[in-house]
Amino acid sequence: MADIAKEDDILGRARVRDTPELEAYYEDLAKQETGALWTVANSIEPWQPTPTSAPVLWRWEDLRPQVLRAIDLVRPEDAGRRVVYLRNPKRKEVSAACGWLFSGIQTMKAGERAGAHRHAASALRFIMEGTGAYTVVEGHKMSLGAKDFVLTPNGTWHEHGIEEDGSTCLWQDGLDIPLTNALEANFYEVHPDDYQTTNLPLDDSPATYGSPALMPELDKWDQPYSPLLKFRWDQTYEALQAYARVTDGSPYDGVIMRYINPKTGADPMLTMGANMQLLRASEHTKAHRHTGNIIYQVAKGEGYSVIGGKRFDWKEKDIFCVPPWTWHEHCNTQGGDDACLFSFHDLPTMRKLGFYAEQALEDNGGHQVVTG
Amino acid sequence: MADIAKEDDILGRARVRDTPELEAYYEDLAKQETGALWTVANSIEPWQPTPTSAPVLWRWEDLRPQVLRAIDLVRPEDAGRRVVYLRNPKRKEVSAACGWLFSGIQTMKAGERAGAHRHAASALRFIMEGTGAYTVVEGHKMSLGAKDFVLTPNGTWHEHGIEEDGSTCLWQDGLDIPLTNALEANFYEVHPDDYQTTNLPLDDSPATYGSPALMPELDKWDQPYSPLLKFRWDQTYEALQAYARVTDGSPYDGVIMRYINPKTGADPMLTMGANMQLLRASEHTKAHRHTGNIIYQVAKGEGYSVIGGKRFDWKEKDIFCVPPWTWHEHCNTQGGDDACLFSFHDLPTMRKLGFYAEQALEDNGGHQVVTG
Amino acid sequence: MADIAKEDDILGRARVRDTPELEAYYEDLAKQETGALWTVANSIEPWQPTPTSAPVLWRWEDLRPQVLRAIDLVRPEDAGRRVVYLRNPKRKEVSAACGWLFSGIQTMKAGERAGAHRHAASALRFIMEGTGAYTVVEGHKMSLGAKDFVLTPNGTWHEHGIEEDGSTCLWQDGLDIPLTNALEANFYEVHPDDYQTTNLPLDDSPATYGSPALMPELDKWDQPYSPLLKFRWDQTYEALQAYARVTDGSPYDGVIMRYINPKTGADPMLTMGANMQLLRASEHTKAHRHTGNIIYQVAKGEGYSVIGGKRFDWKEKDIFCVPPWTWHEHCNTQGGDDACLFSFHDLPTMRKLGFYAEQALEDNGGHQVVTG
Amino acid sequence: MADIAKEDDILGRARVRDTPELEAYYEDLAKQETGALWTVANSIEPWQPTPTSAPVLWRWEDLRPQVLRAIDLVRPEDAGRRVVYLRNPKRKEVSAACGWLFSGIQTMKAGERAGAHRHAASALRFIMEGTGAYTVVEGHKMSLGAKDFVLTPNGTWHEHGIEEDGSTCLWQDGLDIPLTNALEANFYEVHPDDYQTTNLPLDDSPATYGSPALMPELDKWDQPYSPLLKFRWDQTYEALQAYARVTDGSPYDGVIMRYINPKTGADPMLTMGANMQLLRASEHTKAHRHTGNIIYQVAKGEGYSVIGGKRFDWKEKDIFCVPPWTWHEHCNTQGGDDACLFSFHDLPTMRKLGFYAEQALEDNGGHQVVTG
Repeated sequence: MADIAKEDDILGRARVRDTPELEAYYEDLAKQETGALWTVANSIEPWQPTPTSAPVLWRWEDLRPQVLRAIDLVRPEDAGRRVVYLRNPKRKEVSAACGWLFSGIQTMKAGERAGAHRHAASALRFIMEGTGAYTVVEGHKMSLGAKDFVLTPNGTWHEHGIEEDGSTCLWQDGLDIPLTNALEANFYEVHPDDYQTTNLPLDDSPATYGSPALMPELDKWDQPYSPLLKFRWDQTYEALQAYARVTDGSPYDGVIMRYINPKTGADPMLTMGANMQLLRASEHTKAHRHTGNIIYQVAKGEGYSVIGGKRFDWKEKDIFCVPPWTWHEHCNTQGGDDACLFSFHDLPTMRKLGFYAEQALEDNGGHQVVTG
Repeated sequence: MADIAKEDDILGRARVRDTPELEAYYEDLAKQETGALWTVANSIEPWQPTPTSAPVLWRWEDLRPQVLRAIDLVRPEDAGRRVVYLRNPKRKEVSAACGWLFSGIQTMKAGERAGAHRHAASALRFIMEGTGAYTVVEGHKMSLGAKDFVLTPNGTWHEHGIEEDGSTCLWQDGLDIPLTNALEANFYEVHPDDYQTTNLPLDDSPATYGSPALMPELDKWDQPYSPLLKFRWDQTYEALQAYARVTDGSPYDGVIMRYINPKTGADPMLTMGANMQLLRASEHTKAHRHTGNIIYQVAKGEGYSVIGGKRFDWKEKDIFCVPPWTWHEHCNTQGGDDACLFSFHDLPTMRKLGFYAEQALEDNGGHQVVTG
Repeated sequence: MADIAKEDDILGRARVRDTPELEAYYEDLAKQETGALWTVANSIEPWQPTPTSAPVLWRWEDLRPQVLRAIDLVRPEDAGRRVVYLRNPKRKEVSAACGWLFSGIQTMKAGERAGAHRHAASALRFIMEGTGAYTVVEGHKMSLGAKDFVLTPNGTWHEHGIEEDGSTCLWQDGLDIPLTNALEANFYEVHPDDYQTTNLPLDDSPATYGSPALMPELDKWDQPYSPLLKFRWDQTYEALQAYARVTDGSPYDGVIMRYINPKTGADPMLTMGANMQLLRASEHTKAHRHTGNIIYQVAKGEGYSVIGGKRFDWKEKDIFCVPPWTWHEHCNTQGGDDACLFSFHDLPTMRKLGFYAEQALEDNGGHQVVTG
Repeated sequence: MADIAKEDDILGRARVRDTPELEAYYEDLAKQETGALWTVANSIEPWQPTPTSAPVLWRWEDLRPQVLRAIDLVRPEDAGRRVVYLRNPKRKEVSAACGWLFSGIQTMKAGERAGAHRHAASALRFIMEGTGAYTVVEGHKMSLGAKDFVLTPNGTWHEHGIEEDGSTCLWQDGLDIPLTNALEANFYEVHPDDYQTTNLPLDDSPATYGSPALMPELDKWDQPYSPLLKFRWDQTYEALQAYARVTDGSPYDGVIMRYINPKTGADPMLTMGANMQLLRASEHTKAHRHTGNIIYQVAKGEGYSVIGGKRFDWKEKDIFCVPPWTWHEHCNTQGGDDACLFSFHDLPTMRKLGFYAEQALEDNGGHQVVTG
């Protein structure tokens, strides 16, 4: 405590210097499970956030073979799920890819399936490779192709598998397990019958709720998450292209849309949201920063992002993360084609709690100086 | 007052019989701009609604030539709008097609346009014939083809026209002018420049908001009506077909969807909503009745509806109405094809005010006895 | 149609002059239950609302003896309710006091009670005289004193009575019966047991929901109307006095508060709202006008209001109405005491439907020229 | 990983046993900032939450003298705030009293004031002793007496002080600083003028918004937190007594009410809520447990709570905490008087994120076996 940071030596900040009397006082306080606020105030009330996660890029060409190796090493019924998870070097103790978000790559072979379970954490999948994948959520079975995006919301029974006539599939699993654990709210249940049985037609959710601005007249949906559980890549890419024709887009993110709950217009799950953004040929966005964690997966094309002053080159299927309050900007290096980034994030959590803050980089024409 | 209806001769209803003393009393009350409630109570508090509108069907083959006749008789700039309106024989004094809803058939020739205006009434258009039609709402210009549905919400500047290279167009205009007048809330303004000028790209509204379950990330829309102003027929019909594959549909309406505000999931305008429904080949729905007024236009196919016990045969483009609390059921008489009914209604008004009520017909297997 | 009003002779308004061809056309249209919009457009799309109701003041000294006369003329069990209703001279056909609002003065003697019923119309009571009055709403019994305000929302079983040890009571009943009828949504039911039985403690509703900014932790209320059904005069007057100490108030209404649903902050019923306002000693407000109908009852003091250019002097318990889009201003003529006006209105309906509009009078220092 | 817990040896849980091949695999994964999910799955997806905080009771008779000692040791202008904080022995690293909640006891002498600041964390104060305390929030100054409760929401300028003619005051400060830090969203600003200047009348917030079910007609409040910033003890206690007359109360909490935002009926701040509960003479509630953290302060009377099987005796002003998913029950040991517990908590956070879960203790008549 003897050292007060220069910027803290003002009225309104703690700037008490140690004395023998105070040290004796602090000892007495400690015996009563108490402490003097001014000894910790400046550190627990920082001027602005200092993220504990590192920006990291995981290259698909590195990840893919390691994930496939697991096919011969473990069976889904032993592993629970055959997943290699992305472990931020600064967040190992909470098994997070970034902040309180979990990301893993899962693989399954044709004919495999994993038992149904449910948990308080919310989950989503973004499909990367293979055919015949499916997810069943509360009895709604959805067929999944590359770049489709599917939800398994908080508290819903869900299971994944590959049809017998499919091929080996890989996908990203995104979850807020670390957040759920941090808030000490995680519950886990294995389905009593191991697998869900269902009489509902295949893909009934997108057939019912996946059309533009139309809703069943008699709909009785009353869950806090989206009744549309699967978002198709072809429709998403088409939407971005249509929107690109009539918008300049965001200076920081290009042509960016968010996946919504079509019943409410809100994010599709309570804690996590997801976006797809299109960077036009050669587009280089400006830098901004905001609270909340984002995990990106390259859906199309190649380019790079500058995150916290460091350049990360990416191509299709690579995954990278942007920690909170960290400057970031994106560049599509392809002169003749657009690039697309899928991302998921905890911005719904930040916004619901009043914690969202954002800042544009003013210096240097809005671009970071690349140092790493 | 001397005659009390049999069903009113119970505790809780007014059943006071006239006497000389009471008649003197009533005269005294009248002098003070007052009256005795029990002299009117049973009529102003009926057991259930008795609609003042008649069910009516307007045949397109009758309407079309009369509307086209107006082209040579009046110019849009003199008529304001070249519209033949549907006049319910029981609602002539309020110029309504049914209840408090207005419906008219408008026509314009290639190159014509009508000046921009705005009013407190909400309006919508359902296109019936022609090419090159457009509507401009608050600077958003939308191209319109057959069976497209477009909004011009309460208080928005709007104008209609036909491109020079288009053809003569006909469409239905639906408005709540009678309701707005009944509530003594109608205002009207002519645009100061006669026509809106706009730099926005054509069809920017559907390009931005017309994709399934996707929304611009940075959207700042804050109006009480839908930012999606145009709903395309091809997407609507495709949506109905997809939904039809996974639903039994409503017993009263077949496969029925409502047009929504994609930002909120609510009806696209404050007072009026709209639906499209698909009746499967040979489908004959059961009868129900509810409060609120509905005006139907046949979008596809042919069949009949039984309304208040009377059969109304319809084919494509015919218009008919269902008054409040009137039994109705629909039948697609085509054995090999589906039929589609567009409808607009004041159910959002009824629901917001707590006035929605509905009842299924129990007798006769759920079907009315046709008497008319 | 031959005469076009001067202000309508512009682009955007109908200004078609009759010709023999057009007259023939109009006749043909009429045969098909249709008409030419331009023949009615300017009247159904007025520049601004022209109210059909007259401003009226009903003096308590006139009303009271007439209402009391009814005690000997009819019994509640025959009259349904022993009510003298206020009949606006321009709205006789719909039995309305103003616009689509009903107002009546009800009286009951000690020991009398009227049978329980329910209806789609919403109702409220403002107590004027007497002791021992009570209302039971859905089993919640409330004791009522002078100037208390009580709700009987849309669709709720309710009944009124006077305790055996009470005195003859008079109160104002406000309802939206005319609106409910206009929207053809009125239903009426007599309670199967004639009277409600209840085990709930007296005044459980205000005891549970009537405290400032506190709510039962475990509350399960899910109705569309306020769980607080009774609003006490002493608390209301105290609230106005507290608020008056820290606000300048509204230039048009003085110190004005609205009764709310404490669960939501919204109006306590779906269609009607209510206010209490305090005019400081000698306060004379400025004039404004807005859509929607208001019925006032003087809760305290005396003064006058200028409505549509006509002066209406009032004192305690007098009732008067302000029709839509009619200039109005209020004056407390007492130099040494505040005056209070209770009012109920259909502004919730107007606002939900997007029909609320308001305008301040700019001329003459914001005051009307009194002509009547 | 070699040891699989017995309950985890089922389909749906990870039960992979180590092999040399797997160990080699794990090493390779670690080099790529990845890991195998099944090595951590059972620990990051527990069957149910295991709280990291200990239940603790801080006795006022111990706290008070230590806090007062600080008066002579530090000045507010050096300490920022003269606060002794409660440090849960299991949450020292985040300076939390329980979970992600901070609690501290602050003291100030007559005439002292602390500079204005704002932060992303939300804060509240519950006054324990002294006269003349005040808080200023965004220019709204509030006078505070014993057991009054006051908000300083997320992002608002606020400052505290004691009037010159007041006495030494003590109060509890509750904040969600640890949560804000965990979500890496904390910002801190010192007011540019050190202190707020204001022309608003004293206590304008409670005078405007603190009356039962009444709201200013013309209110323009649009903040995400309650416009009512101060909740008076006398009104709160009166409300509990009124409610107690008509309710059995909660089996777990007695007669319990929550402080609300009177504009919306929701919790008064985005992340934290607060309650006051009354335990009737000799009332002993049943045990339940739920997610979320609660910090209690005894507002009146004495008794004990059993938390996680351990008994904690309390009397007025003592503070204690209940960690997540920990059984707890309360007992008022006074035979002749009620006891009141103030509490604040993060349940709004838990509920917004879908993390609220609750369970009643079924065994032993609903009571814990006291072990500590």
